Amino acid sequence: MSIEFTNDSPGVSDVPGFRVGAAGCDIRNKGLDRLDLTLVVADQPCAAAGVFTTNDVKAAPVRFCQQVLAVSADKIRGIVGNSGNANACTAAQGDADAVAMAKLAAAAVGAPADAFLVCSTGRIGELLPMAKVADGIKVSASRLSRDATEGVRSANAILTSDTRPKSVTARFVWEGKTVTIAGIAKGAGMIEPNLATMLVYLLTDIAVPRAELRQMLARAVDASFNAISIDSDTSTSDTVVALSSGRVPFSDWGAFERGLHQVCRDLAEDVVRNGEGVRHVIRVTVRNAASLGLARSIGKAVVNGPLFKCAVAGNDPNVGRLIQAIGKHVGATAPGTDLSRLRARMGGVEIFAQGAFQLDPGKEAALVAHLRGAELYTSRPTPDGMFSAPIDYPPHERAVELEIDLGNGAASAAVVGGDLTHEYVSENADYRS
Amino acid sequence: MSIEFTNDSPGVSDVPGFRVGAAGCDIRNKGLDRLDLTLVVADQPCAAAGVFTTNDVKAAPVRFCQQVLAVSADKIRGIVGNSGNANACTAAQGDADAVAMAKLAAAAVGAPADAFLVCSTGRIGELLPMAKVADGIKVSASRLSRDATEGVRSANAILTSDTRPKSVTARFVWEGKTVTIAGIAKGAGMIEPNLATMLVYLLTDIAVPRAELRQMLARAVDASFNAISIDSDTSTSDTVVALSSGRVPFSDWGAFERGLHQVCRDLAEDVVRNGEGVRHVIRVTVRNAASLGLARSIGKAVVNGPLFKCAVAGNDPNVGRLIQAIGKHVGATAPGTDLSRLRARMGGVEIFAQGAFQLDPGKEAALVAHLRGAELYTSRPTPDGMFSAPIDYPPHERAVELEIDLGNGAASAAVVGGDLTHEYVSENADYRS
Repeated sequence: MSIEFTNDSPGVSDVPGFRVGAAGCDIRNKGLDRLDLTLVVADQPCAAAGVFTTNDVKAAPVRFCQQVLAVSADKIRGIVGNSGNANACTAAQGDADAVAMAKLAAAAVGAPADAFLVCSTGRIGELLPMAKVADGIKVSASRLSRDATEGVRSANAILTSDTRPKSVTARFVWEGKTVTIAGIAKGAGMIEPNLATMLVYLLTDIAVPRAELRQMLARAVDASFNAISIDSDTSTSDTVVALSSGRVPFSDWGAFERGLHQVCRDLAEDVVRNGEGVRHVIRVTVRNAASLGLARSIGKAVVNGPLFKCAVAGNDPNVGRLIQAIGKHVGATAPGTDLSRLRARMGGVEIFAQGAFQLDPGKEAALVAHLRGAELYTSRPTPDGMFSAPIDYPPHERAVELEIDLGNGAASAAVVGGDLTHEYVSENADYRS
Repeated sequence: MSIEFTNDSPGVSDVPGFRVGAAGCDIRNKGLDRLDLTLVVADQPCAAAGVFTTNDVKAAPVRFCQQVLAVSADKIRGIVGNSGNANACTAAQGDADAVAMAKLAAAAVGAPADAFLVCSTGRIGELLPMAKVADGIKVSASRLSRDATEGVRSANAILTSDTRPKSVTARFVWEGKTVTIAGIAKGAGMIEPNLATMLVYLLTDIAVPRAELRQMLARAVDASFNAISIDSDTSTSDTVVALSSGRVPFSDWGAFERGLHQVCRDLAEDVVRNGEGVRHVIRVTVRNAASLGLARSIGKAVVNGPLFKCAVAGNDPNVGRLIQAIGKHVGATAPGTDLSRLRARMGGVEIFAQGAFQLDPGKEAALVAHLRGAELYTSRPTPDGMFSAPIDYPPHERAVELEIDLGNGAASAAVVGGDLTHEYVSENADYRS
């Protein structure tokens, strides 16, 4: 079966059976023009599943969604989400505010009070301005539609420091009917293992039973959002939710799961490519490891190694830092692992084998060209030494490609991350000084 | 017993029974004026102990030292070390070169061939220029002395991107005799758990039996060098070696161990304060944790959290990122830990308790003042956007002081790290572009 994927789709408004609306309600005191509230509403009760942050400090909306899904996962009517304020570390008032958001959304669309999921992202530790949120929900409800414009507005309204909306739509034909899986995501900072300050809404009109949806979502998240890392920081709010409207009876779960995985992988890579300060996307494929866990954790160790990340930022094929990052991780987590058959390639060029670097001036030039080719933009400071990305949309989808062959097992994994740049430091340190 | 510590001592040349010599032999092609070879020679065979990198990729000198200590730990005559080239990832030739360095050093001073330890630090993946190294050993041997000048030259010759030598001397009186423990260290980048690109030479004239020296060194390293982190990267060459000349019979091991710990802690903190791009030293004390391991790993998670490190760099008391870093780590390593009694203080000011931030404008101003007070220098870019530290020696020894009380155990630990700055990125990314 051929599945068609579209990256520049409006995303969630593409899915029959759902309407979306967005509003600006000034949550972060940046004015009403800044969209910060999204409402997704299903025509009928949906089967739903969610995957949430592993951070032990969970924001109130995360705890709320977990409770709702424990009792109402087959009658969810929608999602209400805001950016600008994460409603995290806000004690009992935060829990009350999450409940209030769900009730306001349900009331605005005439749904039962326990039928809404709640997502909040943004500043940690401040109470939600509930009067503004209530206005935003009212305006969003009045705009509910399946227009592409409203879809794009909704994908924008969940963003924080992201510079562009991220949406993917997959469509294929099943017994003569076109079915759809679509999603939107926000990422930017605190992006790492086991989710991040990341919100992902996935919708489908395919009738997926609740239990199957939960299992397939868990697998898809594991191979996509859990395989990316921008800065190893995990947020208190990470949430991926999937709703199935049940409109199209279906049984080819292999096709559904392939589509779901691809939508998640595309969104995950978009999250990295739009990560704070990312100037190079780095894709690490680890092969022939003793276990999947080791393969993935080595990939993470590479994309999280600060020195290697800096070298990539500088277009320096610093193979020593790559091998150091691998050895450090293996030494810390699987000491005694035989690394004598370790081989590594960058951009298809062999750089390490038989315990030694395999480099020469010709190869070094090819590696520098590979790094330059994957650079998203050239770093240029302002006169006062501030750095920011001069692009909104990426000029290409190339990545720094690393292949690591451990030669002592059969497991493999791919991990995607970014470099460590002046733009990252400016974004996270210079905003206040 | 009162122990006197001196931080601006020449270090290893202070210890009776040892002579030191240094030379520049152009290992990194930076000219003969750059000191890059150090020789430490004992008048008599020494008891010796070593602690080495946990990186699974070990440089040839590390493997060599481990072999030597396995068979000759009571008859070590000295240490030969170079900077500029780590002799790592150099396959069989690297092992042969480490052996050759030991033989050259032994021959130059008339010691047995198996009596020298070898340390190399610097660029990974290149063969040592052995003719230059041989010249350096010859020159160093001709300069062997106990002059303070030669001590300072030796502390300088083990440095790579460090900007200043690090040395500590502890002296105290035992049964009418002054005894000495002294050490020198190099650090700078790749500084993290379980050592780093870090070399530390510790010497004492106190007669410490080999087995006791090994045990006490392991404990001292654990509470000092293993409790610092600059960038979470662990090098392939980390080495701490301790030699006891045995000149002064001794039995107050409590006093010796206190002195050894303090020398190691002082050197460790100096390594952080001179770490690449460090503009704030961050000291995290974790109390009332369920285990020592959890206490220390939370401290590490805080000083390694990129977003929190950036906030400190920007003098932003971003408490959300602090709590996020703690929760992320606990969620990943000890899920289910009760964090309801978590309390946190910065600079003595309570910032988190009872599940919520405890902040007000007056406290925020005090926190900003605390961060500014701990800043080592003001960040200023060059016209082309490069950043480098304008200081060689630190103007003060203040740190950003964090106290984290988990309220569910009895273990405590202190960890020292640094912030994440433009200077770090410039040092590690801009050198080539």
